[in-house]
Amino acid sequence: MPETEIPLQTRVLPWAYENGTLRLLDQRLLPSVESWLECQSALQTAEAIRSLAVRGAPLIGVAAAFGLALEARRVASRSEGDLDHAFEVAAGRLVAARPTAVNLAAAVARMERVMRETTGGVAGERVALLEQEAARIAEEDRLSCLAIGRQGAEWLNQRIVPSRDGIGLLTHCNAGALATAGIGTALGIVRALSSTREVTVFADETRPFWQGARLTAWELLTDGIPVTLLPDVAAPSIIASGRIQAVVVGADRIARNGDVANKVGTYGLALACRAHGVLFVVAAPTSTLDFACADGGAIPIEMRDGEEVLRIEFPGAVPFRLAPEGTTALYPAFDVTPSLLVDALVTEKGVSVPPHGAAIREWTGASGR
Amino acid sequence: MPETEIPLQTRVLPWAYENGTLRLLDQRLLPSVESWLECQSALQTAEAIRSLAVRGAPLIGVAAAFGLALEARRVASRSEGDLDHAFEVAAGRLVAARPTAVNLAAAVARMERVMRETTGGVAGERVALLEQEAARIAEEDRLSCLAIGRQGAEWLNQRIVPSRDGIGLLTHCNAGALATAGIGTALGIVRALSSTREVTVFADETRPFWQGARLTAWELLTDGIPVTLLPDVAAPSIIASGRIQAVVVGADRIARNGDVANKVGTYGLALACRAHGVLFVVAAPTSTLDFACADGGAIPIEMRDGEEVLRIEFPGAVPFRLAPEGTTALYPAFDVTPSLLVDALVTEKGVSVPPHGAAIREWTGASGR
Repeated sequence: MPETEIPLQTRVLPWAYENGTLRLLDQRLLPSVESWLECQSALQTAEAIRSLAVRGAPLIGVAAAFGLALEARRVASRSEGDLDHAFEVAAGRLVAARPTAVNLAAAVARMERVMRETTGGVAGERVALLEQEAARIAEEDRLSCLAIGRQGAEWLNQRIVPSRDGIGLLTHCNAGALATAGIGTALGIVRALSSTREVTVFADETRPFWQGARLTAWELLTDGIPVTLLPDVAAPSIIASGRIQAVVVGADRIARNGDVANKVGTYGLALACRAHGVLFVVAAPTSTLDFACADGGAIPIEMRDGEEVLRIEFPGAVPFRLAPEGTTALYPAFDVTPSLLVDALVTEKGVSVPPHGAAIREWTGASGR
Repeated sequence: MPETEIPLQTRVLPWAYENGTLRLLDQRLLPSVESWLECQSALQTAEAIRSLAVRGAPLIGVAAAFGLALEARRVASRSEGDLDHAFEVAAGRLVAARPTAVNLAAAVARMERVMRETTGGVAGERVALLEQEAARIAEEDRLSCLAIGRQGAEWLNQRIVPSRDGIGLLTHCNAGALATAGIGTALGIVRALSSTREVTVFADETRPFWQGARLTAWELLTDGIPVTLLPDVAAPSIIASGRIQAVVVGADRIARNGDVANKVGTYGLALACRAHGVLFVVAAPTSTLDFACADGGAIPIEMRDGEEVLRIEFPGAVPFRLAPEGTTALYPAFDVTPSLLVDALVTEKGVSVPPHGAAIREWTGASGR
């Protein structure tokens, strides 16, 4: 992972850990209010994840890791049996907080390994090692974002003919600094490409949680990058119009064959890109790869409460009901994009073009993991 | 247009004309408030159309026709020159109120013909003939909706294998009784099919004006038809899931080759349908056909103010801003679906399958119009 050339950075930092407190920027309240949650236990952390106060596949992995370190610290004065038990309960709660993003389970698995390897050790030392592992997960994610940003930008630069009017990139949801411990995955590529050529950034507003309107717009403007919002429904015709040269999104889980689960709405973008020869790029750290899932059909898709569609609760606004009483709603939080529609899969380890199976095997180790 | 078998009707009637007053249900306030606008001039009618108080391609044609009758009645006591002038100014204003739906211009053209044919006549008689022509346009639309509903349902019934679990239909925006002078076009088909077999109706919420959440849900529930709302972004994955057997939408203008302009978001649905072998059906009266447009590229697409995306003004709710200051937005109100993606084009005159050019030539008269 070379970290050279133009420095890539962001003013957006949605988390901090210090002395047994995990501070999380409450993303439910953005962009109107910048409020921080303070977590001192795994339960509080799991609730922050479940309620979407903290979101983004890589970042919830980081949060869960620190949540386990917090939990161990909280019960460190008890017996080893109590500590191990509390840790295991906490791990289960964190993994159950959201089902689709595999980074969450992967981070918890790494923390569990530390626990296993330190069995019989002094509690205080175990806590310190857990904190170190969580910090390592975060630092690895920060570096992954940089590598993803640089490699993704380089790949796009080679494939998009320079144009006097610059190029248009569209992103969906928020796969940025607010979703990672670094400059973001999809937005890492946007930041890297913006540093080398003129880029017009379009963002889907991303119903029903408005990640695009609330988070991506706020994050990019915070870093001085202009952004044009689209109603999600407008993306296919804007793609057809030639104003967009690439769609760049993140991922919550990627199956062994390269099928991608990401925020609902991603699949429609991939179909529109394919219909118009526009590049469709998925950016994610290899912690998002799940070799245990043969294809997208094996990825659990979180169904959230239809009430979250029917009732608009926007930060700073008075809640209201969207549809008349008696209306029901469906809210799958993610969808699956088939591997062959993904023109480039960008991880910290490189860029894969279809079919993606070979690269995924290489990145995850020849025998799987 | 046979009007037999099961009576198809609706409790939803969004307009009424009596004694020089056009009453329009203010659709901006649905579903929370049922409030009626009273128009006594073409200018008031044009403003109701521009501001979306009344919307739906067929219904704005009906409203514009009555708007012109109102205008003639309003100035009937003046000289013939004044009457003709006022009528012509009013016609221009009505046509300019919204650019995409061709029914508006077609209805105005019919009213202009009445004016030409009655030149030199008694003012009061001209007004009466204009009112009759407007009523005829409305009655034709009511009958068209019935014919569209019956023929569309019959076509779908033949193509969708009966299933014990019933079938799923998805619609976008509102092409119902609130958009026409009858049972609706797309929702006319939904009503007709619901009367013969078990149908699960899904509706896109339809950002940014929420026609699905506010209008389609209200309209269907008013008639006792259950409805499940989807965030627009969820439609492609729900289509992929097999729960939907056909997508049925209306149209605002259909070009000579069968390209369809309809509410933005329609094109993405058509792409998803094609990818999964789901039927994509467009329902519209022949007044929606524009033989003067060779293809979709010639259809003017209304670009509305991006502020309508950035600022949420929901009926009965306190308005709020969606994205931080400095964000811009694009809001094309319609998009174009290529003819070949339209599995069935249903008008009152019949059902066409691709390529649609021959049917459209036949329906509009061999030499065009």
